Amino acid sequence: LSPLDEAALAGASLLAEIREQPAALRRLLEHAPEYERVAHAARARGATLVRMVGHGSSDNAASYGVYAFGLLPAWTALRDSISLTVYSGATLDMRGSAVIGLSQSGRTPDVVAYVLARASDAVLPLAAGPERSIAATKTYTNQVAALALLAAYAGGVGETYARGIAEVAGQIEAALRALEPRLAALAVPFAFVGRMFVIGRGPEYATAREVALKLLETCRVAAEPLTATDLAHGPVAALDALFPVWAIAGRDENLAAVREAVERARAAGAAIVATGPAAADIPGADYVLATPEPPAPLLAPLLSVVPGQLFAWALAHAKGLDADRPAGLAKVTLAR
Amino acid sequence: LSPLDEAALAGASLLAEIREQPAALRRLLEHAPEYERVAHAARARGATLVRMVGHGSSDNAASYGVYAFGLLPAWTALRDSISLTVYSGATLDMRGSAVIGLSQSGRTPDVVAYVLARASDAVLPLAAGPERSIAATKTYTNQVAALALLAAYAGGVGETYARGIAEVAGQIEAALRALEPRLAALAVPFAFVGRMFVIGRGPEYATAREVALKLLETCRVAAEPLTATDLAHGPVAALDALFPVWAIAGRDENLAAVREAVERARAAGAAIVATGPAAADIPGADYVLATPEPPAPLLAPLLSVVPGQLFAWALAHAKGLDADRPAGLAKVTLAR
Repeated sequence: LSPLDEAALAGASLLAEIREQPAALRRLLEHAPEYERVAHAARARGATLVRMVGHGSSDNAASYGVYAFGLLPAWTALRDSISLTVYSGATLDMRGSAVIGLSQSGRTPDVVAYVLARASDAVLPLAAGPERSIAATKTYTNQVAALALLAAYAGGVGETYARGIAEVAGQIEAALRALEPRLAALAVPFAFVGRMFVIGRGPEYATAREVALKLLETCRVAAEPLTATDLAHGPVAALDALFPVWAIAGRDENLAAVREAVERARAAGAAIVATGPAAADIPGADYVLATPEPPAPLLAPLLSVVPGQLFAWALAHAKGLDADRPAGLAKVTLAR
Repeated sequence: LSPLDEAALAGASLLAEIREQPAALRRLLEHAPEYERVAHAARARGATLVRMVGHGSSDNAASYGVYAFGLLPAWTALRDSISLTVYSGATLDMRGSAVIGLSQSGRTPDVVAYVLARASDAVLPLAAGPERSIAATKTYTNQVAALALLAAYAGGVGETYARGIAEVAGQIEAALRALEPRLAALAVPFAFVGRMFVIGRGPEYATAREVALKLLETCRVAAEPLTATDLAHGPVAALDALFPVWAIAGRDENLAAVREAVERARAAGAAIVATGPAAADIPGADYVLATPEPPAPLLAPLLSVVPGQLFAWALAHAKGLDADRPAGLAKVTLAR
């Protein structure tokens, strides 16, 4: 390859994998009966506490699980501390708990150690296919969909959600066609930005965490995820005109809080990018990137992460960085 | 007051309240019997799941509670989602749960709504005294100590921990005398820094969150808290020589992970500030701010937050900001 061809390839895997997300979701749905079986088994055992463990994007997906399990079967789901049990030897009472280990590779050492100590009953396939880019995209959305599916079967609405995810796959395809050219243009004025806040709330807090992580790892932007409420409790004081805010607005009970947070950020002079299904309901946003309304509000995060993924890819390109190969990272993280 | 006198007062409340922490801890200990009674009542009811709710610094203290309850009575403690139950109306099964609402003012609307819906059995005094600076300091350390005390009484080691906190109060006094002049000098070269990572792990993750929040709200630095493991799962790719890392090294099972994370950060060219009791065990740190070894390792966060508080005060001063009155913030946050 000539140097020119190599430059053209920078970030090519990331973009291909963003585009592959609808197909990956459809592959996941082929395994819906397995998810149903495991959800019923957990219910039969009387599980009402779900302990989720994972790192990076997997831990971001777990933030979604808190809401999926809380809203559908009304189970308490928590992102459990791995270090507490694996390294510090705490002996928590695990009766009534279901444990979900989230790993894209299946090889993250301490996630495996946590789960193996509890003798796993089932391995549920993500079916995302091989991911070559270091930054996770289709494995993240398939983890979110997998948690939605499991929670929905546990809550007795599995078939509705399986159909909903199939519909969302089609919506992502259409959204990608509309968003790709817009994001490429939006990235240019952001090439000088060194820091951003990404805000979301409820199920969209997972999206905020995932978008911030993409910006950190592929664009070298100090992007910090915050709930809309976190922003008001201190961080808003750091904002200025060179510190933009990416806001994810779901059409649910959390919209009022997101609107209020954006109003505070605007008062501090920050530029606002509004995304999500209710993006158009954020007054005064500088950029509006609305995503389609999903068949169920709880499925919105599968769509609202897409503008953030595309933005990370486009911004890396605008900054001359190779989004597929961030400095200092490997696909399977073996760090403790 | 002349303009000169007003300038001399900028940040004066914050510094006075940092210095008042030993006295505030001693006031808390006068209420130890109340903490003992509540801990025994929770144990008698068979509570093994602790739901903690709070925002900002109170939520940071809750991160400490995860480890205090996990390691002492071996209870699962979680930072519960407020929005899930207060705004989205999820009806979680709360049997076997103890709820702890954390609020410095006692007036945070949704924390009050969450707790009141469950009819609180006891109000435990923080005894921190009035806090005038908007950035929390002594209320944070008293919340950490309060959670330690409650967890210790629940785990049958209450008297040992009460004596330990009394000893730590004296250690903070000595540490303040040694650290104040050093932090004032350290702040000067950091006056140009726009972004930082603050890393900690296990019980010190709470410290990382609290130090990052102080830097965000008083110094306008985009400071992001990360566990040592989070750093390796993506964010390390954003580091460079102008992006320093503040590392909190406890002398416990988490030290190896913090050392590894710092090694990665150094490889990316980041300047390293090492704090905490094991600060001297972080190879190649550019600045070492060791804090005393507490009588029990779990009490280290009461000491290791102090250099971060002083740094925030000194850095605000070096940048010409009034640490007592950050832009856009009020002492009692009424945001949803």
